[in-house]
Amino acid sequence: MLIVLSGPSGVGKGTVRKAIFAQDNNKFDYSVSMTTRQMRPGEVNGKDYYFVTKEEFEKEIAEGGMLEYAQYVDNYYGTPLKYVNEMLDEGKDVFLEIEVKGAMQVREKVPDGLFIFLTPPDLMELRQRLVNRGTDDLDVIDMRMKKAVDEIEMMQNYDYAVVNDEVEAAAEKIKTIIRAERWRVKRFLPDYKKQLGDVLK
Amino acid sequence: MLIVLSGPSGVGKGTVRKAIFAQDNNKFDYSVSMTTRQMRPGEVNGKDYYFVTKEEFEKEIAEGGMLEYAQYVDNYYGTPLKYVNEMLDEGKDVFLEIEVKGAMQVREKVPDGLFIFLTPPDLMELRQRLVNRGTDDLDVIDMRMKKAVDEIEMMQNYDYAVVNDEVEAAAEKIKTIIRAERWRVKRFLPDYKKQLGDVLK
Repeated sequence: MLIVLSGPSGVGKGTVRKAIFAQDNNKFDYSVSMTTRQMRPGEVNGKDYYFVTKEEFEKEIAEGGMLEYAQYVDNYYGTPLKYVNEMLDEGKDVFLEIEVKGAMQVREKVPDGLFIFLTPPDLMELRQRLVNRGTDDLDVIDMRMKKAVDEIEMMQNYDYAVVNDEVEAAAEKIKTIIRAERWRVKRFLPDYKKQLGDVLK
Repeated sequence: MLIVLSGPSGVGKGTVRKAIFAQDNNKFDYSVSMTTRQMRPGEVNGKDYYFVTKEEFEKEIAEGGMLEYAQYVDNYYGTPLKYVNEMLDEGKDVFLEIEVKGAMQVREKVPDGLFIFLTPPDLMELRQRLVNRGTDDLDVIDMRMKKAVDEIEMMQNYDYAVVNDEVEAAAEKIKTIIRAERWRVKRFLPDYKKQLGDVLK
């Protein structure tokens, strides 16, 4: 099973992902992304990212080696297909934490993946805060809210939506979803039928 | 949300349902069935069943008052629509534990319900036990297995399948599924959008 956690930028995907993986009892592996950006102090190649050159990354794209990718501020970020397939072939579940655009690329290639949308808490409160602050015109505030709502419209392309009101709670909800999803008939039936096939031999 | 637990007869639906409701922390109510059979010592009208006469039950059917029903051994069993609707209108989740045929009637009327199939553990083991016992011909055993497999084919009409290998574990899995299902985008989005609509006013 391919598990994709995504959501609007700034919603806290990385923090929630780290909270999920801070616990040891996960039955899935995190797929390390590939990037062309500079390694930062303390980062480890193959753990935080696979750090490659622009040429290497573009070669991967050309050869169809990326499950999804995007460019931000002159750097590429993406998910190498190779590692994901290796893990899936080993029967492991793979966990991706990626941007909304990348998630839609994955949805096209792996429609049976499990897609979870992390969504910001309480837009009403955000709006009120912006109004109270008084630094933006109401027009500007409404445009901002419209943008937030547009991003949240993306939610319709996902299976589940979790509000990131509290990091540990959101992480726990995501783990509950992943557990439950193992018993979805569409995931459960193929193996079960194989067993039944053996019975009928 | 309407939650339906079903599965082949003899799989242990009632036992698992009782294990679920033995705990106090459920956020859903059990819908009591209606029946024409005699009340047994210790049973309470309105708790174990709504006990009615055959005439009363048939009047309910004629008036479209049953969400689902079936006849077993000259008695009617079914789910009165009235109580289910009352609970749903109050914003409560309703839990039904019913036979496979009844579940399919509910699926037609409430396609957005949550349908969970309880399935027997290890048919291979069952077959081996029958073979070892040596009282049935292999033909008879294979017919029995075929029937079991047919019943399990029904699983395809459900959202989730849970193996009843151990009652407490099965109950816990079902509760996990019900929790996770609250964050399904199709269930989550309508309310969330209402909130967003308020933001955009």
